[in-house]
Amino acid sequence: MTSIINVNLPQQSYEIAIAPSSLEQLGQYMTDLQLGKKVLVVSNPTIFKHYGEKAIASLKSAGFEVASCSLPAGERYKNLNSIQKLYDIALENRLERSSTMVALGGGVIGDMTGFAAATWLRGINVVQVPTTLLAMVDSSIGGKTGVNHPHGKNLIGAFHQPRSVLIDPEVLKTLPMREFRAGMAEVIKYGVIWDAELFSQMEASKNLNQLRYIKPELISTILTRSCQAKADVVGKDEKEAGLRAILNYGHTIGHAVESLTGYRLVNHGEAVAIGMVAAGQIAVDLGLWQQEDTERQNALIQKAGLPTKLPDGVDIEAIIEALQLDKKVKAGKVRFILPTQIGVVTIKDDVPSEIIRKVLRGM
Amino acid sequence: MTSIINVNLPQQSYEIAIAPSSLEQLGQYMTDLQLGKKVLVVSNPTIFKHYGEKAIASLKSAGFEVASCSLPAGERYKNLNSIQKLYDIALENRLERSSTMVALGGGVIGDMTGFAAATWLRGINVVQVPTTLLAMVDSSIGGKTGVNHPHGKNLIGAFHQPRSVLIDPEVLKTLPMREFRAGMAEVIKYGVIWDAELFSQMEASKNLNQLRYIKPELISTILTRSCQAKADVVGKDEKEAGLRAILNYGHTIGHAVESLTGYRLVNHGEAVAIGMVAAGQIAVDLGLWQQEDTERQNALIQKAGLPTKLPDGVDIEAIIEALQLDKKVKAGKVRFILPTQIGVVTIKDDVPSEIIRKVLRGM
Repeated sequence: MTSIINVNLPQQSYEIAIAPSSLEQLGQYMTDLQLGKKVLVVSNPTIFKHYGEKAIASLKSAGFEVASCSLPAGERYKNLNSIQKLYDIALENRLERSSTMVALGGGVIGDMTGFAAATWLRGINVVQVPTTLLAMVDSSIGGKTGVNHPHGKNLIGAFHQPRSVLIDPEVLKTLPMREFRAGMAEVIKYGVIWDAELFSQMEASKNLNQLRYIKPELISTILTRSCQAKADVVGKDEKEAGLRAILNYGHTIGHAVESLTGYRLVNHGEAVAIGMVAAGQIAVDLGLWQQEDTERQNALIQKAGLPTKLPDGVDIEAIIEALQLDKKVKAGKVRFILPTQIGVVTIKDDVPSEIIRKVLRGM
Repeated sequence: MTSIINVNLPQQSYEIAIAPSSLEQLGQYMTDLQLGKKVLVVSNPTIFKHYGEKAIASLKSAGFEVASCSLPAGERYKNLNSIQKLYDIALENRLERSSTMVALGGGVIGDMTGFAAATWLRGINVVQVPTTLLAMVDSSIGGKTGVNHPHGKNLIGAFHQPRSVLIDPEVLKTLPMREFRAGMAEVIKYGVIWDAELFSQMEASKNLNQLRYIKPELISTILTRSCQAKADVVGKDEKEAGLRAILNYGHTIGHAVESLTGYRLVNHGEAVAIGMVAAGQIAVDLGLWQQEDTERQNALIQKAGLPTKLPDGVDIEAIIEALQLDKKVKAGKVRFILPTQIGVVTIKDDVPSEIIRKVLRGM
């Protein structure tokens, strides 16, 4: 059964296709998109071992000329050095403007492949084939691409929409448990900011922290409703002029925590979970949200096996300072996305440092 | 007297203002654009010595917070290392999404500043303040930004339109003669591809190779008609889906010559001049253009003090091979822009290598 979700954009609309075993149809799928013959598949060693051969075989049998490249796994390799490697391989394989880079992997691979595609020959095609839950429901959709600066996450990047997103839920079976949970953080985020029904369905599930204990129907709901939420928001505000900022719920403090722990101790989803707990409490302290709803949120985060406390050794003042570097800073004021009820958030541009400090001390 | 030329684009239109002594009005001018308070002025040591203080003083007196950065001059520094320096300075100065980079310099500074602005925080403002003739009439307009890969020019880049282009013709007085001539190559290009009247006015001028021997009215005509030609073409085809390719007249072989001489022996304008001579002859050999008109073109190129022969030691086979790397290559076929009369060109996708080889041997 295939679900198709459309991302409607003024310049270039595209679809997200969610279908079991669709990885084997990649070649046919890309043929339908009428892309040029040359394809560069970008992955990391682990993913490539599991799925590289299958993807390449499918592309070749559909008549594509396929090159491939494996970049080291992990957020700490999401930098310009990796992008330069992609440029070199693009050059070696004479990629043309009609050529396509296929991002076969998680968020890191998707962001880097997207950025390389955005900036090679001033922009070539990219098709996202996400293999982690986080990439499926979030990073592969919406055209945000980029790499980290040594002093800040995602500071270097571009908006570059994919030609298509192909999601094969089967590949989640090889996803490490911790990675699955990281993805659940973004799914819970959609529940809090946009989709109260999704939130309730997750509340009703006995288990949320391991793929094999979650009913297949709920996995299907999680994928389609999350992708739909992302597509809705991006379709209304592609370049983050306003609404799209709500997708950063939990990310303001989350990014600071990731950065301060060197992208090692805490992964992106865990950092977002911590950030949502903090933002929820800030919302309560500002009188915007009910304590009861924060607790429902935090219970869901815990059920998904995600952290709700700051990691040991993270300095609160360092977080406050790191917030000043956030892309969302405007005239020195930190912007926070804060819930007002389950499924609804508001944007506050002027949260006092004192409140942030107090909430972080309480965690 | 100020001339305003509008660049009309679907997403973001902007104006080119041509006005003597306008550099001193930069601050006021940028205030009118309603940009954020933080500005990073990017230049090179020579230009900065001449005009940096004036630009910064004007910005500061208009209330901007100004940082500045001087990058080494020359095409061979147009690489990712320079971009990384700009990222570091952007970070140090906490540039925000509303901040602006000002490119005060020639084509290299404009391309690099534009690319850094395109990719910092996924895109901040850039204002182009070109100081060379070439940058005034060509590279500052139209949003092409980028840097070179060690094996090819402008392979890394993005489309990122400036918020405005401010041209102060007074600054041409400090432009070295060779640089002035390089800019004339692009002006002659507009005459051949778009504006027969501009071509005739240049033919009628006794001198074309030194600013001080050219009548001020002709300089004014050259600037306004060239900018208008560029704005017309870009307005019709921002992302080079079709028409815009005509601006690459002379650039196909030109880029190869620049690359093969290591961006040292021959500058961009000289390479374009050589490329126009070659393309003109290819057009004649294909029966598209009159021999007489090619000779008129070549006479104009010579009058502007530009080369019409291949530099010594450039291997013709290496040029043929380099053409395969050109961004305009489609399915391995080299695209040429070829004149059919003065002021009119056509696009040919299938020029046989044999003809290219023969023409190059004859130069």
